[in-house]
Amino acid sequence: MTAANRPTNAFYAQSGGVTAVINTSACGVIETARRHPERIGKVFAGRNGIIGALTEDLIDTSLESDADIARLRHTPGGAFGSCRYKLKGIDEHRAQYERLIEVFRAHDIGYFFYNGGNDSMDTAWKVSQLSERLGYPLVCVGIPKTVDNDLPHTDSCPGFGSVAKYVATSIREAGYDVASMARTSTRIFVMEVMGRHAGWITAACGLASEAEGEPPHILLLPEVPFDEARFLARVKDCVQRHEYCTIAVSEGLQDARGNFLSDMGTRDAFGHAQLGGVGQIIAQLIKDKLGYKYHWALADYLQRSARHIASKTDAEQAYALGRAAVELALAGRNAVMPGIVRLADAPYRWEIGVADLKDVANVERKMPSDFISEDGFHITDKCRRYLQPLIGGEDYPPYRDGLPDYVRLKNVSVPRKLGEFKV
Amino acid sequence: MTAANRPTNAFYAQSGGVTAVINTSACGVIETARRHPERIGKVFAGRNGIIGALTEDLIDTSLESDADIARLRHTPGGAFGSCRYKLKGIDEHRAQYERLIEVFRAHDIGYFFYNGGNDSMDTAWKVSQLSERLGYPLVCVGIPKTVDNDLPHTDSCPGFGSVAKYVATSIREAGYDVASMARTSTRIFVMEVMGRHAGWITAACGLASEAEGEPPHILLLPEVPFDEARFLARVKDCVQRHEYCTIAVSEGLQDARGNFLSDMGTRDAFGHAQLGGVGQIIAQLIKDKLGYKYHWALADYLQRSARHIASKTDAEQAYALGRAAVELALAGRNAVMPGIVRLADAPYRWEIGVADLKDVANVERKMPSDFISEDGFHITDKCRRYLQPLIGGEDYPPYRDGLPDYVRLKNVSVPRKLGEFKV
Repeated sequence: MTAANRPTNAFYAQSGGVTAVINTSACGVIETARRHPERIGKVFAGRNGIIGALTEDLIDTSLESDADIARLRHTPGGAFGSCRYKLKGIDEHRAQYERLIEVFRAHDIGYFFYNGGNDSMDTAWKVSQLSERLGYPLVCVGIPKTVDNDLPHTDSCPGFGSVAKYVATSIREAGYDVASMARTSTRIFVMEVMGRHAGWITAACGLASEAEGEPPHILLLPEVPFDEARFLARVKDCVQRHEYCTIAVSEGLQDARGNFLSDMGTRDAFGHAQLGGVGQIIAQLIKDKLGYKYHWALADYLQRSARHIASKTDAEQAYALGRAAVELALAGRNAVMPGIVRLADAPYRWEIGVADLKDVANVERKMPSDFISEDGFHITDKCRRYLQPLIGGEDYPPYRDGLPDYVRLKNVSVPRKLGEFKV
Repeated sequence: MTAANRPTNAFYAQSGGVTAVINTSACGVIETARRHPERIGKVFAGRNGIIGALTEDLIDTSLESDADIARLRHTPGGAFGSCRYKLKGIDEHRAQYERLIEVFRAHDIGYFFYNGGNDSMDTAWKVSQLSERLGYPLVCVGIPKTVDNDLPHTDSCPGFGSVAKYVATSIREAGYDVASMARTSTRIFVMEVMGRHAGWITAACGLASEAEGEPPHILLLPEVPFDEARFLARVKDCVQRHEYCTIAVSEGLQDARGNFLSDMGTRDAFGHAQLGGVGQIIAQLIKDKLGYKYHWALADYLQRSARHIASKTDAEQAYALGRAAVELALAGRNAVMPGIVRLADAPYRWEIGVADLKDVANVERKMPSDFISEDGFHITDKCRRYLQPLIGGEDYPPYRDGLPDYVRLKNVSVPRKLGEFKV
């Protein structure tokens, strides 16, 4: 089933945790759509993802200048608002789908682009069934995005390369700092990074260590159950050899029974759950057991919004996937997601491939076990070969008055034509 | 008293917390010294600051290539190791000073350069008395360095501008992230920054907010006693108006009685002191009292080692002050510190001035009260005019394989000529 050949409007929305380059994909979608006025009318962005479609809360991107849309390319966050909201299946909640059709029909929407991770590709897949199951002519294409790098059927996910570059740079820089202070002050530095279920981001920290003894010295991956005694022995050995020890730890670090270390059930004097991230827990453990002074950092949102140090490769792929999504839609390819196909590691070469949404939705790609060193505390050369190209190249935003000059779009609402709908 | 006109060697050392640009000053010192072989022999770096002098642990920088010294300019951390160590007065601990003279004489050292903050300028000032009080011919010059920006007699301190640029950029970027997520998930973002006694770094976060409603919405400065009720009311109002609220908080935030909020004396179930930084305490307070979901970040060492986003102005000043220190020493100016004199705010113009070490040592420069907005939650335009030029310009390091390419010097020790000395 293909979209009508008369121009119809497009819906685009962002979903899940945002990244440094999800707007780069948005830029790719909108700029490509603008080059095809004979096929695509306006691009309406959903305010806060699929919720914008359900509540008829649409943004008219045609009111944004070409220059402002171009600035989206280097602006972090999600310009149209994101959401964490999962559609139920058509049979479970048919009214939602009928509402979507009502909104799409009211605004003459023939193309649907959904930009997100695992859950979002599930939403996209469900929406892609509208045409076949409910007879509304819609071409639906997913656009991958996730800092967690855990989508299948794409060699990497836009957003991940930039986080990887940020965390590897940050822990390298902090390593130079701690090395200076170790003799008379701080010997331990712990940085906690994202990735609750998969260790891709923690693994990326390992890129900063190019030779024996270079920080980070230890990676604590969620794939490797935490063994306190082995870990402490390794820290002690590292300090004895190098005077200091830097550690990257995944927020999702688990013990041998599969419990998150960050969820230790401890309570403060007021009965509050212990708030500390796992980075703090690990650092304090070292202090308690080995006596070393520590510092720790929690990068949190800084890591996934750090557009100022985005990977050029990542930004190029984010844009290319947005563009490819529109091209696939114009070719009438419903229920697909463009992805990255790696052709060679070094020099890195890649091209765009196409996956079926039904194969992508809700499937998590774990880190292969041969990416983790035998002792469990670092990455292998194979992992390094995979990760290296993803952080390649710099793609600096423009600066104004000493700060990155990011765009805030006007985000004018499309006048509503329908009644309210409760989500 | 001036140094002898025959060439003598120079001692250079780094002290206190390191910064993104302390090595830039080191580069300025060494490159300038190398241009004056008729006056300065070798530059010996103290390994770990003044401790290197006391223990005769010297590094022969003449064994480093010109190219590697040039790379110091863009390498964070302290290349020769830093220390937190305060010399006692000559009358209190004369043996230390006699040891210094013994080491300086053994290695024919006629110039002494000490690169650091308040405590370090105290050390430099004490060493500068060697010539007058103990008759050893030495020219001693301090070189300012501190992310805390709290040295007097210099308009700004190298290291601060780069931290300021990092924190303002980071909280701007995180603001774009939270704005995207606010409607269906996280409404609060708290970033904890350094500056235990003075709010300069917290104030710098305010630069990211250029118009009403732009993040960061609230700054919690150590100069303003924390008032829970007023703060919570402000957060609630901000969320009601803008859907979200981003907050920068100083690690040194205090309550009305002058107690650090980070030192609340709370204990976890194991009896450990509550580990959380003040950022977490503030975020959890909002969650408990207002119910908003939060994220928080602790930049810690990342902020002061972030050479990848150094301020060009800061790097230029750091280099210029290192160069000026050598030029002052060559002019026989003992017991001084070059500093920054501001000539104009916009366009920013500055020149090098000279202060007496005795006026700098141990004096902390507080943030002026007219830099803080009347409600205590933000900065004034006057503060903005002061801060703005300090983050001006980008000074990117070179990259290799996707990461900043920082130098590790060989740091070859100068052969010892003397016996041991306990510090």
